[in-house]
Amino acid sequence: MSFRAPVADILFSLRHVAGAGEAMAAGRLGDLDDDTLTQVVGEAGRFATDLIAPLNRIGDQQGAKLENGRVFMPKGFGEVYKQWAEAGWGGVTAPAEVGGMALPHVVDVACTEFWAGASMAFSLCPVLSEGAVRALLLTGSDALKATYLKKLVSGEWTGTMNLTEPQAGSDLSAIRTRAEPEGDGTYRIKGQKIFITYGEHDMAENILHLVLARLPNAPEGVKGISLFLAPKFLVDANGKLGARNDLRCVGLEHKLGIHASPTCVMAYGENEGATAWLVGEENRGLAAMFIMMNSARLATGLQGVGVAERATQQALAFAKERKQGRSAKSGTASAPILDHADVQRMLLTMRALTHAARGICHLTAMALDEAHGGADATARAQGADRAALLTPLAKAFSSDVGDEVASLGVQVHGGMGYIEETGAAQHMRDARIVAIYEGTNGIQAIDLVTRKLPLAGGETVKREIAMMRAVAAEVAAAAAPAFGPAASRLSAAIDALERASHYLAKAPQNDALAGATAYLRLFSLTLGGTCLAKAGLAGLKQGDPARAALARFFCEKLLAVAPGLADSIEAGGDSLTPYESILAQAS
Amino acid sequence: MSFRAPVADILFSLRHVAGAGEAMAAGRLGDLDDDTLTQVVGEAGRFATDLIAPLNRIGDQQGAKLENGRVFMPKGFGEVYKQWAEAGWGGVTAPAEVGGMALPHVVDVACTEFWAGASMAFSLCPVLSEGAVRALLLTGSDALKATYLKKLVSGEWTGTMNLTEPQAGSDLSAIRTRAEPEGDGTYRIKGQKIFITYGEHDMAENILHLVLARLPNAPEGVKGISLFLAPKFLVDANGKLGARNDLRCVGLEHKLGIHASPTCVMAYGENEGATAWLVGEENRGLAAMFIMMNSARLATGLQGVGVAERATQQALAFAKERKQGRSAKSGTASAPILDHADVQRMLLTMRALTHAARGICHLTAMALDEAHGGADATARAQGADRAALLTPLAKAFSSDVGDEVASLGVQVHGGMGYIEETGAAQHMRDARIVAIYEGTNGIQAIDLVTRKLPLAGGETVKREIAMMRAVAAEVAAAAAPAFGPAASRLSAAIDALERASHYLAKAPQNDALAGATAYLRLFSLTLGGTCLAKAGLAGLKQGDPARAALARFFCEKLLAVAPGLADSIEAGGDSLTPYESILAQAS
Repeated sequence: MSFRAPVADILFSLRHVAGAGEAMAAGRLGDLDDDTLTQVVGEAGRFATDLIAPLNRIGDQQGAKLENGRVFMPKGFGEVYKQWAEAGWGGVTAPAEVGGMALPHVVDVACTEFWAGASMAFSLCPVLSEGAVRALLLTGSDALKATYLKKLVSGEWTGTMNLTEPQAGSDLSAIRTRAEPEGDGTYRIKGQKIFITYGEHDMAENILHLVLARLPNAPEGVKGISLFLAPKFLVDANGKLGARNDLRCVGLEHKLGIHASPTCVMAYGENEGATAWLVGEENRGLAAMFIMMNSARLATGLQGVGVAERATQQALAFAKERKQGRSAKSGTASAPILDHADVQRMLLTMRALTHAARGICHLTAMALDEAHGGADATARAQGADRAALLTPLAKAFSSDVGDEVASLGVQVHGGMGYIEETGAAQHMRDARIVAIYEGTNGIQAIDLVTRKLPLAGGETVKREIAMMRAVAAEVAAAAAPAFGPAASRLSAAIDALERASHYLAKAPQNDALAGATAYLRLFSLTLGGTCLAKAGLAGLKQGDPARAALARFFCEKLLAVAPGLADSIEAGGDSLTPYESILAQAS
Repeated sequence: MSFRAPVADILFSLRHVAGAGEAMAAGRLGDLDDDTLTQVVGEAGRFATDLIAPLNRIGDQQGAKLENGRVFMPKGFGEVYKQWAEAGWGGVTAPAEVGGMALPHVVDVACTEFWAGASMAFSLCPVLSEGAVRALLLTGSDALKATYLKKLVSGEWTGTMNLTEPQAGSDLSAIRTRAEPEGDGTYRIKGQKIFITYGEHDMAENILHLVLARLPNAPEGVKGISLFLAPKFLVDANGKLGARNDLRCVGLEHKLGIHASPTCVMAYGENEGATAWLVGEENRGLAAMFIMMNSARLATGLQGVGVAERATQQALAFAKERKQGRSAKSGTASAPILDHADVQRMLLTMRALTHAARGICHLTAMALDEAHGGADATARAQGADRAALLTPLAKAFSSDVGDEVASLGVQVHGGMGYIEETGAAQHMRDARIVAIYEGTNGIQAIDLVTRKLPLAGGETVKREIAMMRAVAAEVAAAAAPAFGPAASRLSAAIDALERASHYLAKAPQNDALAGATAYLRLFSLTLGGTCLAKAGLAGLKQGDPARAALARFFCEKLLAVAPGLADSIEAGGDSLTPYESILAQAS
């Protein structure tokens, strides 16, 4: 059940799939050079492998525990978190002036995947803190930044996002938590929040809660929501911790997975009200929260990739060791199950899906970096649009891949996979939340079709498709045996994607929404195949045909459904219309 | 979280999809008439709804507990089991002379699905007992039958299947458990068996273990395995329980799901050896065990269907109640999530997959009945072949459907789905074993391609395809608006299936095995679509277009990938060949 951070694979993908090599050479990733990239990613990988990965199993078994309002983390979590913070990993992307390393997103995605692959439950704490850093940096007042940013970046304090209430999940317009101004620049918050990740824990001395709430007389709906910062302990002018704020964890959820991640019910203002400060402008809280959400969406995608990677490593190790049945290959009576074609199929599928999802996440990170470091305004605008387009794919496809790969991992283990001690089932349980939180995958698909497809008058999608066509043409031109018929399969998928994109761009809303999830899948599979093809081309240049062979497997075996997905999209929404009478027919 | 046995849907499927109506009219189902069918299925449904279903949650929470070699079942299991046995449900298919109802398989599948949907963990005990009844009926000596059969059929005693050992899972040739003849007609068994479902429990006064073991000097491999019966308590000539046999449960597995089903490590012969009797002929144990396995394979498929049905009911109830977001339909600011197209898509997918899998299981049951009650020898032989062909589909597709539908059920619940108290996650955990046990789904796919596809020189598959074409033609001829373009979509899928079947029939082994899983999926989707189309046609005749509309949804949205699956199969196995170098490239 050990896990080794896939340092070499990630570096390869960053350099050759995301194009970080070229971008560094052109100075579009700031000061980043290949030596620094290699060193930082290597160090992060070692930390994840050596220190975080051993926490994964014990975290699942012990879970976080609530006693008298205090949450106790599983054995070892606090110590490793302290080392993680001391090593500076809380500040990968943060600016130097608040103690960060000011590294680009392409480095951050590597780190984020490592933490998640090593222990998804552990990794959620950093993800939330990083979101809080971003929100404060972009919308916080100078005073708030001065008081809180360095401590967040150093990891001495951690952050949370408080959105959900029992009646307000995907629909934040229903939020009821209230904030009353005190007249001294502070506010008093009263209300209950649920599903608050790391809302309480014992790994850091303070916790900064970013809380969505309504001011008195705020407009109804999402235009009346403001963002506040409420620290667990109030902080004095010298940065010293003072009184305990009027907020506490009143419950921990009993979840399917990520047992070590405390999912808290938080009560704000059971007495005088929790003291809080406004972050950004009044009634503009949702915009600020979306800054955190967008960064978190890429991070959640990487959780899917991380767990998929770990599940694959474990299944592969098992398949090499477990002996059952006669080998068609060697003729041995008791051969490793990896000798069986169907087991090979499962493991190649796991590997291919994982690399495809990783590639999409890396493209997204590169687009975010281009949005800041692109050569000119046009390049930066296109980078921002591309990041916006790819974020729902990175989130939803990668989380689906996490589920699919973890489930295949259980299957490879046979009966042993169903036994909790084996550890394969934990990956499946852990991964299952990723398709749900930070905007369900259904919401990602709607976002893709209704907001991202029309970006820049459709030009953003067109550019992505043109990029894919160029890669397919390169694969065709390479005419390498290792690619087999990959080029024509990839081209057929791109055709299907283009056809579905045209259809959806003009379709009435009902038809477009009915095909949204299939479109997200079609887009992701095609883009994922393109990522694998790019890796294959780069591999061939280095004399290694294995990555081209993986691209071939993906294109022949997994991408073949692309035209069918386009057909199902073009069928529109009529078949959903009689849903009431169909569903009424039960039992 | 309540469950209502889908009596009306199952009766409809049996009558119109499996064709039980016609078969009863023609006397091919023995004495069964529609009144009896309706009555028995209705009674079973009521028992499942009222008595078994309430056990599901508490069974998951409490689980089975091992203390000093005794297994204690969760609260209520023993009482309900007793009532279940007293009502005669242990003898649905057993002959009248041993106390059974002698009803055909089409009735049995309804009951089996009800028990599984109500509580999968509870339902496994009856499945194992039924398998033991079949094995004894077909291969047991008269003395064994006289001693044990009535008690098994009455449910006073229960049965188990003891195949697996730590080194012998899918590969039974590696079994090491020994049986020594005592010279008095009995044998002494020594060895350890794992994964023994209901190997020990407190619901019945005796447990009959069917155990695979090797006789001294038996040939190596599967041709040296014999089947034995070892009761927990020895039985005297008057049928009274005597001494405790030398066998015991030494451990319970800690599993992902079905917590109430005791999965035992069984130790045989820790002292003098467990006293046992030979069942059937020496060294022919595997054949006898396969009788149990085949019956169990259909039953496992029904577990997938049952859990899928329950997950769908729960998700639908939630989607009608949970309010989030503005409705595109009504314009209401806070509308039930069922108003959203993507939630409709998920629920229609759940319903469609469940009905498709159920249809395939019902066709399988009907084929088993035709094998016994067919009009002539040809019809009976064709029935047997058809049952053999459909059994791997019934097992593997239905279990995959169980996983997919239960996971969609979690997704419909959003964040609540990840919280154990909601109960949606339990369905996902419970269902996950079905794709693994009774022959993994990979093994089912290999069985389909290597043994079932060539049945009767390929005629069995050809007949199935011809049946599908006839249904597609009927749909086309009906030209009903509710079907939309279902006929052409179904025809395209049948074309794809035919093309893939031709390819695989002639393909070298490596290519055939590489496509086995995709072929099983393609076959099942196409046959499942045919089942829904048959239901749609029957519904239209009764003036109800809803089932035709469900068939349309399935054909447009889920069956569209069929040609792509055929393409992936026809791509052969070359892309798997370099698996070692591809998989070696990790990290």
